[in-house]
Amino acid sequence: MGCCHYYQHVGEGCDTAFTVDTSRITFGRGCLAEVGDRARALGMKRVALFSDARMARLSHFQKVHRSLSAAGLDVVVYTDVHVEPTDQSFLDAARFASEARPDGYISLGGGSVIDTCKAANLYATHPADFLAYVNAPVGEGRAVPGPLKPHIACPTTSGTGSEVTGITIFDLLSMGAKTGIASPALRPTEALIDPDCTATLPGEVVAASGLDVLSHALESYTARPYVRRPAPQRPSLRPMSQGANPWSDLGCREALRLMGLYLERGVKDAEDHEAREQLMWASTLAGIAFGNAGVHAPHGMAYAVAGLVRDFRPSGYPQDEPLVPHGMAVIVNAPAVFRYTAQVSPERHLEAAQWLGADVRGATPSDSGEVLAGKLIQIMRAVGIPNGLGGVGYGEADVAALTEGAFPQQRLLQNAPREMTRPVLTELFRQALSYW
Amino acid sequence: MGCCHYYQHVGEGCDTAFTVDTSRITFGRGCLAEVGDRARALGMKRVALFSDARMARLSHFQKVHRSLSAAGLDVVVYTDVHVEPTDQSFLDAARFASEARPDGYISLGGGSVIDTCKAANLYATHPADFLAYVNAPVGEGRAVPGPLKPHIACPTTSGTGSEVTGITIFDLLSMGAKTGIASPALRPTEALIDPDCTATLPGEVVAASGLDVLSHALESYTARPYVRRPAPQRPSLRPMSQGANPWSDLGCREALRLMGLYLERGVKDAEDHEAREQLMWASTLAGIAFGNAGVHAPHGMAYAVAGLVRDFRPSGYPQDEPLVPHGMAVIVNAPAVFRYTAQVSPERHLEAAQWLGADVRGATPSDSGEVLAGKLIQIMRAVGIPNGLGGVGYGEADVAALTEGAFPQQRLLQNAPREMTRPVLTELFRQALSYW
Repeated sequence: MGCCHYYQHVGEGCDTAFTVDTSRITFGRGCLAEVGDRARALGMKRVALFSDARMARLSHFQKVHRSLSAAGLDVVVYTDVHVEPTDQSFLDAARFASEARPDGYISLGGGSVIDTCKAANLYATHPADFLAYVNAPVGEGRAVPGPLKPHIACPTTSGTGSEVTGITIFDLLSMGAKTGIASPALRPTEALIDPDCTATLPGEVVAASGLDVLSHALESYTARPYVRRPAPQRPSLRPMSQGANPWSDLGCREALRLMGLYLERGVKDAEDHEAREQLMWASTLAGIAFGNAGVHAPHGMAYAVAGLVRDFRPSGYPQDEPLVPHGMAVIVNAPAVFRYTAQVSPERHLEAAQWLGADVRGATPSDSGEVLAGKLIQIMRAVGIPNGLGGVGYGEADVAALTEGAFPQQRLLQNAPREMTRPVLTELFRQALSYW
Repeated sequence: MGCCHYYQHVGEGCDTAFTVDTSRITFGRGCLAEVGDRARALGMKRVALFSDARMARLSHFQKVHRSLSAAGLDVVVYTDVHVEPTDQSFLDAARFASEARPDGYISLGGGSVIDTCKAANLYATHPADFLAYVNAPVGEGRAVPGPLKPHIACPTTSGTGSEVTGITIFDLLSMGAKTGIASPALRPTEALIDPDCTATLPGEVVAASGLDVLSHALESYTARPYVRRPAPQRPSLRPMSQGANPWSDLGCREALRLMGLYLERGVKDAEDHEAREQLMWASTLAGIAFGNAGVHAPHGMAYAVAGLVRDFRPSGYPQDEPLVPHGMAVIVNAPAVFRYTAQVSPERHLEAAQWLGADVRGATPSDSGEVLAGKLIQIMRAVGIPNGLGGVGYGEADVAALTEGAFPQQRLLQNAPREMTRPVLTELFRQALSYW
């Protein structure tokens, strides 16, 4: 399985090469204890340890703190990370970093913590107006002028992949929109990925973050191939989100295979250590793949789904604010999107369904969108995801606002294999209202 | 396919995590032309361009030189690289580098060129007695004290994988033995992998270097699992050759699959660009895998097979000196070794045979050594590899000397999944004398 001809035909004026850039990763049970030795090996003497208030009460936090102290490092702690960070919370963290003057960073938490640490490191190392580095057209999209201080990222959910990407995402409060900063300089120097951290996660969190991972893999696998993306002006300007390529394909296929085997098990039984470990590994592989290929429409649409939330409060998550968890906001769009994109690369969509474990016997290319969407819906139901946009509180009347919220996410939408105009997005949101 | 339980049981006192460390890679037809822009982006101003006399007459060399000059870089050229480098040729190259004082290195060629460039960069950047950094027990095995100057490696054969590893190999003339230097600091900063470079290679060279790649993948896939290797004293001392792990497995499987599909085609038809491109990609993946997991007995034994050559002169190679090309010296040992190692991990050996394209219907675990050896022998015959050690000029009377030559390669032999004592090596060399 796996087509070797997919990248043989280069579009006119398009790119002819792809670039692989991966940071150092250590994976294994208990590897959080390596953090002190690794920080010292990177030359750190005074480290800023970033986390959030909930995590700071858990034993993982103590383990990291002890390991850093035992290695003879000065540790300054920042646990005011905002879940779903904003420009305001990024600036607070950057102010802390500028005053504390660490020579290295450790982040321990989910995507919000790792992303906040990236931003604090950036603005403390290369001070600038906040919008300077933010993705155009919202910000200036200015290039980061040099390397940042070393950063060891320790993820505690099997989800975002932030530990291996050069991307940080936040809500720009003045615009009520999610946007981000993307630069290879933001990629953490190392990641320490310890599956023991996921042992205590509620099943609902494993489900939503797992479906984020699944969609990282599916979107990267079906993204516009790199040989269809216009060549960069200079090779060293090739974007990180360069489109599907033989490297990202490898990680995607294995992540899909592991998700098909282990997601339901890992959601339903916190004691199933093998399943939770394999989900963490799938998250790592999908993170490497999407950091290299880029995601597309389901993620672009998810920014609007999360941003316009009214009163949805899922179980397993804090109940103080309405929230559509990121992975849930992504996956509710996915069946509709893949039914649409399957028409331009049906074999690839069918292959993806097969890696997920779908029975594809007798399926023809024209069935592929339906087969893949059907498999996704089956997984969503099995792990308790709401029934499409309707299940998280949206109706037909919201489709126009969702479209307007998603359309500016051109960095993501242009990475889709098929054009994502406003009318297309409207139709996809409509199709995503209900699946069963 | 692909067993998820293989790494679940950690041996007593053994390692519980694995580390992934990959340099930046760019892959694609024509990407050699990126070298000037990439060198400048790395901050180089005065570069040493390493190659060999044959390559210096080819258009690839001109392309690289032009790209560097067009980017405004000073270029000093060193084309005296010795094929099968020695301590003497390494020292000559290091002397050149010390005098030329470049602030960056470009290597264009096969493994000999890239390895020589690594050594020159090392000794010019961190001068020391030659044996200081050489692997113990032959040398002192001293740690490289810091980073080297940036190095962009441009391989021109689909073979050694040196462009993505931290290893350099040479003949120590005073001892008549091959040994090497291994350090993460030696890994090139970037690799530019342009399949166009392989279009003019003779079929015999594609065959031998391709079987080196195939054996990189097979040895890494069957190497002692990382959970059976004693844990390092400190995590940051985890060796580069850490044993088979889920990361190296991914690259190995894909490299084996591509070798099964494309090796024979690429050997027999230089015009089959698709096949040669896929072989180059397989070489890259297998290089990443073995730089991470390590090879074992077939490579350890190959040092003796190459070193004790009497009068074998293969077609397709220069005829002035007797030579057993590296890939050929490796693969003649492989069927005998895998028949032996299959007994400790039969499922894994059977899986490997299946990725290579063997028909495994009805095969039981106890057949796996025979199935894999049979598939290897079929491939060797199809691409014109000599019939075992006998085919490259050895007989029963040489087995003792081959054993003595291979036994000191403990860094490799200890990475095998089964003990490699002197009597075992003797028996394996005897089995390798003739296969058909």
